[in-house]
Amino acid sequence: MCADSPAASGSDPARDSRREVDWVFRRVSWLVTCDDTMRCIPDGALAVDGGTLAAVGTTEEILQRFRGRRDTDLSGYLVLPGLVNAHVHGAMSCFRGLGDDLPLMQWLTEVIFPAEAAHANPDMVYWGTLLSIVEMLKNGVTTFCDGYFHEEDAARAARDSGIRAVLGQGIVDFPAPGIPDPGRARERAEAFLEAFPAGVPTLRPSLFCHAPYTCSAETMRWVKDLCRERGILFQIHLSETAGEVEELTARHGMSPAFLLDRLGILDPGTLCAHANWLDTSEIALLARRGAGVAHNPESNMKLAAGVAPVPEMLAAGVNVGLGTDGCASNNDLDLFGEMDRAAKLHKAFRRDPVVCPARRVLWMATRGGAKAVGWADGIGSLEAGKKADFAAIDLKQPHLTPLYDPVSHLVYAVKGSDVRHVWIEGRQTVCDGKVQGLEEEAVMKEVRRIAASIRR
Amino acid sequence: MCADSPAASGSDPARDSRREVDWVFRRVSWLVTCDDTMRCIPDGALAVDGGTLAAVGTTEEILQRFRGRRDTDLSGYLVLPGLVNAHVHGAMSCFRGLGDDLPLMQWLTEVIFPAEAAHANPDMVYWGTLLSIVEMLKNGVTTFCDGYFHEEDAARAARDSGIRAVLGQGIVDFPAPGIPDPGRARERAEAFLEAFPAGVPTLRPSLFCHAPYTCSAETMRWVKDLCRERGILFQIHLSETAGEVEELTARHGMSPAFLLDRLGILDPGTLCAHANWLDTSEIALLARRGAGVAHNPESNMKLAAGVAPVPEMLAAGVNVGLGTDGCASNNDLDLFGEMDRAAKLHKAFRRDPVVCPARRVLWMATRGGAKAVGWADGIGSLEAGKKADFAAIDLKQPHLTPLYDPVSHLVYAVKGSDVRHVWIEGRQTVCDGKVQGLEEEAVMKEVRRIAASIRR
Repeated sequence: MCADSPAASGSDPARDSRREVDWVFRRVSWLVTCDDTMRCIPDGALAVDGGTLAAVGTTEEILQRFRGRRDTDLSGYLVLPGLVNAHVHGAMSCFRGLGDDLPLMQWLTEVIFPAEAAHANPDMVYWGTLLSIVEMLKNGVTTFCDGYFHEEDAARAARDSGIRAVLGQGIVDFPAPGIPDPGRARERAEAFLEAFPAGVPTLRPSLFCHAPYTCSAETMRWVKDLCRERGILFQIHLSETAGEVEELTARHGMSPAFLLDRLGILDPGTLCAHANWLDTSEIALLARRGAGVAHNPESNMKLAAGVAPVPEMLAAGVNVGLGTDGCASNNDLDLFGEMDRAAKLHKAFRRDPVVCPARRVLWMATRGGAKAVGWADGIGSLEAGKKADFAAIDLKQPHLTPLYDPVSHLVYAVKGSDVRHVWIEGRQTVCDGKVQGLEEEAVMKEVRRIAASIRR
Repeated sequence: MCADSPAASGSDPARDSRREVDWVFRRVSWLVTCDDTMRCIPDGALAVDGGTLAAVGTTEEILQRFRGRRDTDLSGYLVLPGLVNAHVHGAMSCFRGLGDDLPLMQWLTEVIFPAEAAHANPDMVYWGTLLSIVEMLKNGVTTFCDGYFHEEDAARAARDSGIRAVLGQGIVDFPAPGIPDPGRARERAEAFLEAFPAGVPTLRPSLFCHAPYTCSAETMRWVKDLCRERGILFQIHLSETAGEVEELTARHGMSPAFLLDRLGILDPGTLCAHANWLDTSEIALLARRGAGVAHNPESNMKLAAGVAPVPEMLAAGVNVGLGTDGCASNNDLDLFGEMDRAAKLHKAFRRDPVVCPARRVLWMATRGGAKAVGWADGIGSLEAGKKADFAAIDLKQPHLTPLYDPVSHLVYAVKGSDVRHVWIEGRQTVCDGKVQGLEEEAVMKEVRRIAASIRR
């Protein structure tokens, strides 16, 4: 499959009235579409042309209408839309496992901030992001929404890998990697947008305003204005910890979500990461404004930051995607793990085994994320006209046997390591578990080199 | 490595004064011993003889003292003691993913109990347990503590696989698979013990008294007496849900742990599964009596059964092991996943990122489990004189790069699928991710056959 697959034989092209497309994938044991009805098709098939899904259906339906220049049999596999990691700081894979199990402020001020001050340079951002991309691709993530500094180097890594990405240059009101003078942050943001690789259909720029407790109202306002002007995603950390909510509420006389709303920031082009400490009125506000949320269960659990009111947000109609957050507080980038955690955490926390059912959670990791990062028209489901971004999972494994319900398996039993093949824009980016066109060992070697200097 | 490895060359056996042993494993990148100091040895080595660890140390130390008839280089690998799954119902892999996201009582009474009544026969127990064993072996579990019905068939599966196991025949005061007349449960238990395969050093029998709400005081008493008489482990579900605790406390005028104590059941030979709803006095009681606990974070989360007071139990000195519980409420048997969940769940629930640090959690999955199932003298750590039960993890992977702390990785980043090789009693049971001496595909095929009849 990794080499060119021959077209299916047995038909004479000259007399074949079927539409010829780039690639037909047929006999998929379970095709999980994540369409509006969460349709799961046994013996499914996809017709892919020019990086786009020409059609989705049963093998019989697709083979009646399409002939592939390449033709691949995916029996024994489950195919699902590529997952969307709605919140990550890719470069932070360089800090994986650095200072676990510490109080949050000690971890930040004694471990992470000093490490970033000393090591977050273009070299670290490129290689750290590339390592994260390799890990995500192997785990079936086809789109990630990033926020960090030196973000042009993150974009370079994304471009080199073929992954789809929304890349947010970080903005904060204190000296930061690549922005020693916060007074020049706007200049820096504009330079990032100017230099952003044009004409790469898989990459979109964004700005990432760190948080309401690290950015002034003025900063948040100009960043949002710039995003609106350029039509790009505005990202912000919102109400991750109880402490910051208390501090902000005391300072501004209103809760953080209402503060953002007063600044005109809450709209469908804004993505709020975490949203752990929203009250009912803030949840209603986010739903009304159409702002998205990236829920990061593992990071929130590990840092004891709080448990997001996900069942309430979903019930209120807030659009919620799933994210891993940075590697340092996770410590991996496996969105299948996040799905399992999201499904179970809220059940445990609410003492209710019915909340966050598997279908809702899979929706968050696909459709919810696609909408949250502003790409709902192109990705998140397998439907005609959408991008050909999908992953194939090997079902012939003991821990996936027996199979009563493919969606249950995706949330409660599949691991990222079960992903065997991945396609993005119709191009195969993972084959037999190996990222195509990148030397994984070389990427790991560079990150080990960077880690050696961090260790010192 | 899977075939016979030649001995290291370069020395003349006749003039070599080193002790000859069956197998030397050297150049282990990280040897995580789980000894009393949780020592992690870079460039470590093991000398194995007759199924036992002859010595553990650095490669230099071991090669000075030992010469292996077989000799294996494990550079690039992390080696740790085989994990101990302290609570599982192996046969239930046949019900994996059957009826998720339902209220607990509806799930039990409408899905699981009817499925068990119709399908829990010797054939299902053998193949279901064997499938669970295959999954566990591939995930680095070398010992499991099982409780189910038709347990001789579970023992048959364990014997056929080479895994180490404590196998508990189920006892309950209503008609159960293989025991249509609960009045003959004692006879059934005695027959199970009589027929238990003698002389298999990896297998031990046990009795599994289902729970204080399904077994009378009289039943619990004779089962414990029989266990004491035979010197075997007594297993019971204790205080899994708030509802059962309420009911039992009303019925007996005391909380469940005190009820067990009044019956003389709490001692180091008793393993209590779950223990989610213990108050301070019950925790102190379990600590005083030396009874063990199997903590099952994923199952407890999925069923919303409760969050066990693990930090308090550990602080009080209760011995806590980790378990997966049955597959139907998990839905996999990956103890690395349980470690991650145990570390994170309690942090989230207590809003304290310091509780359940990685070292403590790894201890639970090895030493804690070994002691809880009554095998502390033989397994749970890599120390001279203990059984040669260990797993090798491939560190050369993106999601395990970089590595600052091997114990952090084991809890927060490693997945069961990273286990490449497993040895039990010095015999290789998993090689390159494949279980040795079993046809995985044949096992899956049999379980698919059983699942087809369950689906109907």
